[in-house]
Amino acid sequence: MTEVKVGVVGGTGYTGAELLRLLIVHPYAQIEVITSRSEAGRPVADLYPNLRGYIDIAYSEPDENILANCDIVFFATPHGVAQSLVPSLIAAGTRVIDISADFRIRDIALWEKWYGQEHACPELVHQAVYGLPELNREAIKRAQLVACPGCYPTSVLLGFLPLLEQQLVDTQHLIASCASGASGAGRQAKVDLLLSEVSDSFKAYGVSGHRHLPEIEQGLSDIIGSDAEAPLLTFVPHLLPMIRGIHSTLYARLLDSDVDLQALYEQRYRAEPFVDVLPAGVCPQTRSVRGTNLCRLSIHQPLERDMAVVTVVEDNLTKGASGQAIQNMNLMLGYDESTGLSAPPVLP
Amino acid sequence: MTEVKVGVVGGTGYTGAELLRLLIVHPYAQIEVITSRSEAGRPVADLYPNLRGYIDIAYSEPDENILANCDIVFFATPHGVAQSLVPSLIAAGTRVIDISADFRIRDIALWEKWYGQEHACPELVHQAVYGLPELNREAIKRAQLVACPGCYPTSVLLGFLPLLEQQLVDTQHLIASCASGASGAGRQAKVDLLLSEVSDSFKAYGVSGHRHLPEIEQGLSDIIGSDAEAPLLTFVPHLLPMIRGIHSTLYARLLDSDVDLQALYEQRYRAEPFVDVLPAGVCPQTRSVRGTNLCRLSIHQPLERDMAVVTVVEDNLTKGASGQAIQNMNLMLGYDESTGLSAPPVLP
Amino acid sequence: MTEVKVGVVGGTGYTGAELLRLLIVHPYAQIEVITSRSEAGRPVADLYPNLRGYIDIAYSEPDENILANCDIVFFATPHGVAQSLVPSLIAAGTRVIDISADFRIRDIALWEKWYGQEHACPELVHQAVYGLPELNREAIKRAQLVACPGCYPTSVLLGFLPLLEQQLVDTQHLIASCASGASGAGRQAKVDLLLSEVSDSFKAYGVSGHRHLPEIEQGLSDIIGSDAEAPLLTFVPHLLPMIRGIHSTLYARLLDSDVDLQALYEQRYRAEPFVDVLPAGVCPQTRSVRGTNLCRLSIHQPLERDMAVVTVVEDNLTKGASGQAIQNMNLMLGYDESTGLSAPPVLP
Amino acid sequence: MTEVKVGVVGGTGYTGAELLRLLIVHPYAQIEVITSRSEAGRPVADLYPNLRGYIDIAYSEPDENILANCDIVFFATPHGVAQSLVPSLIAAGTRVIDISADFRIRDIALWEKWYGQEHACPELVHQAVYGLPELNREAIKRAQLVACPGCYPTSVLLGFLPLLEQQLVDTQHLIASCASGASGAGRQAKVDLLLSEVSDSFKAYGVSGHRHLPEIEQGLSDIIGSDAEAPLLTFVPHLLPMIRGIHSTLYARLLDSDVDLQALYEQRYRAEPFVDVLPAGVCPQTRSVRGTNLCRLSIHQPLERDMAVVTVVEDNLTKGASGQAIQNMNLMLGYDESTGLSAPPVLP
Repeated sequence: MTEVKVGVVGGTGYTGAELLRLLIVHPYAQIEVITSRSEAGRPVADLYPNLRGYIDIAYSEPDENILANCDIVFFATPHGVAQSLVPSLIAAGTRVIDISADFRIRDIALWEKWYGQEHACPELVHQAVYGLPELNREAIKRAQLVACPGCYPTSVLLGFLPLLEQQLVDTQHLIASCASGASGAGRQAKVDLLLSEVSDSFKAYGVSGHRHLPEIEQGLSDIIGSDAEAPLLTFVPHLLPMIRGIHSTLYARLLDSDVDLQALYEQRYRAEPFVDVLPAGVCPQTRSVRGTNLCRLSIHQPLERDMAVVTVVEDNLTKGASGQAIQNMNLMLGYDESTGLSAPPVLP
Repeated sequence: MTEVKVGVVGGTGYTGAELLRLLIVHPYAQIEVITSRSEAGRPVADLYPNLRGYIDIAYSEPDENILANCDIVFFATPHGVAQSLVPSLIAAGTRVIDISADFRIRDIALWEKWYGQEHACPELVHQAVYGLPELNREAIKRAQLVACPGCYPTSVLLGFLPLLEQQLVDTQHLIASCASGASGAGRQAKVDLLLSEVSDSFKAYGVSGHRHLPEIEQGLSDIIGSDAEAPLLTFVPHLLPMIRGIHSTLYARLLDSDVDLQALYEQRYRAEPFVDVLPAGVCPQTRSVRGTNLCRLSIHQPLERDMAVVTVVEDNLTKGASGQAIQNMNLMLGYDESTGLSAPPVLP
Repeated sequence: MTEVKVGVVGGTGYTGAELLRLLIVHPYAQIEVITSRSEAGRPVADLYPNLRGYIDIAYSEPDENILANCDIVFFATPHGVAQSLVPSLIAAGTRVIDISADFRIRDIALWEKWYGQEHACPELVHQAVYGLPELNREAIKRAQLVACPGCYPTSVLLGFLPLLEQQLVDTQHLIASCASGASGAGRQAKVDLLLSEVSDSFKAYGVSGHRHLPEIEQGLSDIIGSDAEAPLLTFVPHLLPMIRGIHSTLYARLLDSDVDLQALYEQRYRAEPFVDVLPAGVCPQTRSVRGTNLCRLSIHQPLERDMAVVTVVEDNLTKGASGQAIQNMNLMLGYDESTGLSAPPVLP
Repeated sequence: MTEVKVGVVGGTGYTGAELLRLLIVHPYAQIEVITSRSEAGRPVADLYPNLRGYIDIAYSEPDENILANCDIVFFATPHGVAQSLVPSLIAAGTRVIDISADFRIRDIALWEKWYGQEHACPELVHQAVYGLPELNREAIKRAQLVACPGCYPTSVLLGFLPLLEQQLVDTQHLIASCASGASGAGRQAKVDLLLSEVSDSFKAYGVSGHRHLPEIEQGLSDIIGSDAEAPLLTFVPHLLPMIRGIHSTLYARLLDSDVDLQALYEQRYRAEPFVDVLPAGVCPQTRSVRGTNLCRLSIHQPLERDMAVVTVVEDNLTKGASGQAIQNMNLMLGYDESTGLSAPPVLP
């Protein structure tokens, strides 16, 4: 396989650092440039001491020529940044994987409402492929612009997928009770994210509305098709007193209580390299996927009643962000889908 | 007020230790005896170094005469223990508050099924009052035997109570997505409870069936009345990487979407000393009640759809166990209900 | 006892919130005013949800007249603030307890070097009494201005005190290897204090020099007297992945290996209400004092060699800050020294 | 390179699981057998859900023939086990790497005193090479039996090494103030290791004597040579509220205060693949080496006084146990020393 020249825009946040960690062990990726306006000139290993000895590059100001000269450019930036830089890269023929939210939602008005700003390049949104390989594998292979799913949406969509594809549940009262480690909120200097605030506690947040809700509902709708009534989800995220990991507990009313759900899930995900259906009765734990691109899940039907429960775990920074971005890169470039993503999770 | 002589059966577990901590600051309680078969002879402060200097008693073998001589006896034992000792105490006229599960479920067959053993004194079960003051205050005052609710049931019942009393929701598809700190599993030498196993992770457990489910469903039924169709709950508990605290996220489909739920909850709990309804939009966090008998909750109706969401927090060892036991004692003995329970939570 | 009107300057930080929590349960303290320039107008319970229902006051702009009208004013401010407000309060006859570092170090030049600013009222520094009751109890009772010790200094000074008073150790090579929970760094929006940065990790910091070093060396010198050679301490603080608690491990070379150190410590602290010498061989744990004004310690002489090891724990926000401030207030106002400080620690 | 057949005795503990995780990614290691008497027949992935999909072997009863047929056998067992099985393997010509304490201490009487049992094969102890590559690289290459150092000893010896080699410090009053995550105590069902006991707290333990002390003192003596006076160390271990990581803070009185310690350390470790000397003034944090074989350290001389302070971090399960075991295997088999050990740490 040939090497590929990679650029990373926004390398100071946790998704950026995770991307670097994964690119370092990727056999074909050659990191050309890592940009950061705020930290330009500072060695990456200054901010991320784990990478000391593994990467010698310093952050640099973003330069469109240098980026356009890469084969592939990742955006690990806050929303709103990619949309200003992506058009020129697309024009230059560079392939782009955006880990931020800029190109995920196809309904521009909906995006602008939830993100509170005007979109700078709506024409590119429809060109972007939603980068959930388990749903859009073939389209991703051909895409020039991939919009990586959010962390919560990845776990919720993978969890509901088989039930919805088979039209087994009431789509008007879906529930996702999710919990994320604090790294999901990023490396931001906010009082709410201090150890003294988050540790030893648990709470819900964003109950009245979270930006991942329209993204998830769009994905659910893609699964059941636009002819069906638009699905409605109640989505409640919670903040866990830990760093990494997302756990989603999904509830859906079964229209038919007699389906073999275990067999359904096993069959649907048999060929997927990163979705692991656990044996009946075993609940996944977030640490069992830490630092990897795995999504492990299990399907339950408590007391044989008419309610299905799906429990799903992923690492929010890996399968929920930068690992999935690498998985998409592998697909786009024709590498084996698991290239550079095969190390087992660290446990305990 | 006169002093009351108190006995504690089973003082080595976390609920026992919490009970002692609360009795120490109670102005009228005089601790006469703390029993433990396994630790008899050992000073309490050996096991609980926080209590060093506050309590000089050593654990002793349980002695029915000494216990019967107390005005009130608490059981902070594993299930199955209280039912063997309580009958003689009841016969002797002693009042008993059982923090364990022995007298919570009135359907003996149901209890025996979920707890896997025969009940030793079914005749006392119907005499016992379920010790949730917000539901059974007057009966508790007159009771000789109080069965303290479990930790999960307390939070779930308080959260659903106003919705069910007003018949506002579909009772056949109630959902309780709950999470507890590790102290809920007690002070047991089990690999599953090691810091190296629980820390930095999150998982569901007991999805196929948890002993608190029949207890909660009985409580829900008590609220809506036996004439109504028996309510059905999907209950999924999760294990949090922290010590104390329960968070319950409750979901119920609204039959009428136009009720002012905030006003309903505020009115229902206005006079309750230990239930705090938060302002609209504010989510409770577990640490805001740590070490206290408070239950804080908030009611939401996301995007004005037909789904109500209630978020509830309590300290599993306090309002979820020993604090509620003291609250019951206060009611039984005619003290002010908040006596000894008024210290503010420690935060951060 | 008569009530006392209390003012709190700087109530938004963790020491301020801890002070409020303790004042709420103090039987004689009446909180008149809580100031904060940044949060003026906002209810205290908005920032500290644990205090909801316990305190109805909102923060207000500091007003010298209102403060001067209090019987006692606490400063829970960053260093540099108290020195600008204290002079007028002192002139007005108000008694002041400063929890910040402004009046701790008598050598003005030394203070200015370590704190990097000019001192605004050096003349008051010598009037201030260093508020370590175990060392300066009588002077505190008469003081108008008390400078509360820092969190690390309290634990290090109490740990070394008996050894130094008896001239048993080499004072030129004292070592304090200390560790603090993250709340010691305060409620500041800094990336370094995020849960994602502090949790699941441990590190030393400030090895080349920490502001508490000159304060501790001054205290050590006060103990051995100014005639003795100035003591030299190597002080290495570490950051613990937890919220509250300081643990100090002290090392001192014994000049005489045959002293009964256990008896020495027990005797020295026998009458102290807040210093608990543990039985020989028992090591204190930080959680055994959480939320209280206790300092627990133990003295060791490993393998009977010529090295003494003292292990000391305190809660950095309580005995290390606001609890000790209340202890000082009790002494100044003639209350029993333990008033409002007697609740047992919460554990687990 | 040719493949090597590997056997693992005792694969249920944390060092065993870490060894498996590392062997899975080692390009030349072929895991033949993983033994466990207690879990024989159970799939490894049942105990370690992170390894699900990576390893299909079940635990089996130890069988000397199968083990002897391996090229190399690791012991990840409690002390006392290896010494009963190793002699026959040595006789069969199999090479052995013992991660337990059985062959670390050459003074048999000393071993028997600290470990409280008779040694079963003292004759093999002198044949064993102490597996600290930075000290004994050449001997390890030729060894048939390697005794891997303990977790604390590895960090303390690497930290003191340059100072002692150059005879720069007083060897009679060395101090090691160390702290370990809870995984260091292993996967044992003990109340003391519960999350509810360890989390949110910090304490010293084993102050009066810890089994790693004689091992460290032996290593220190090896460094300075047997002609020098035997070094004396005060060693105080502490328990951290986290899973992985050891931090050692070392104190040594300098005999000469004018040496350039930074240069000394950088030069000594320049060629070492797993020892990283940080820039002056930077303190290492345990998470910067998590899951890897790296040891990062820094050397300080606070205020230019006569006390050197070394701060050292390692992952107790990796460089402190199983990673170092793989490093030793690589040396013994002629692989590049870093083979299979080059993945960067996961952070945050």
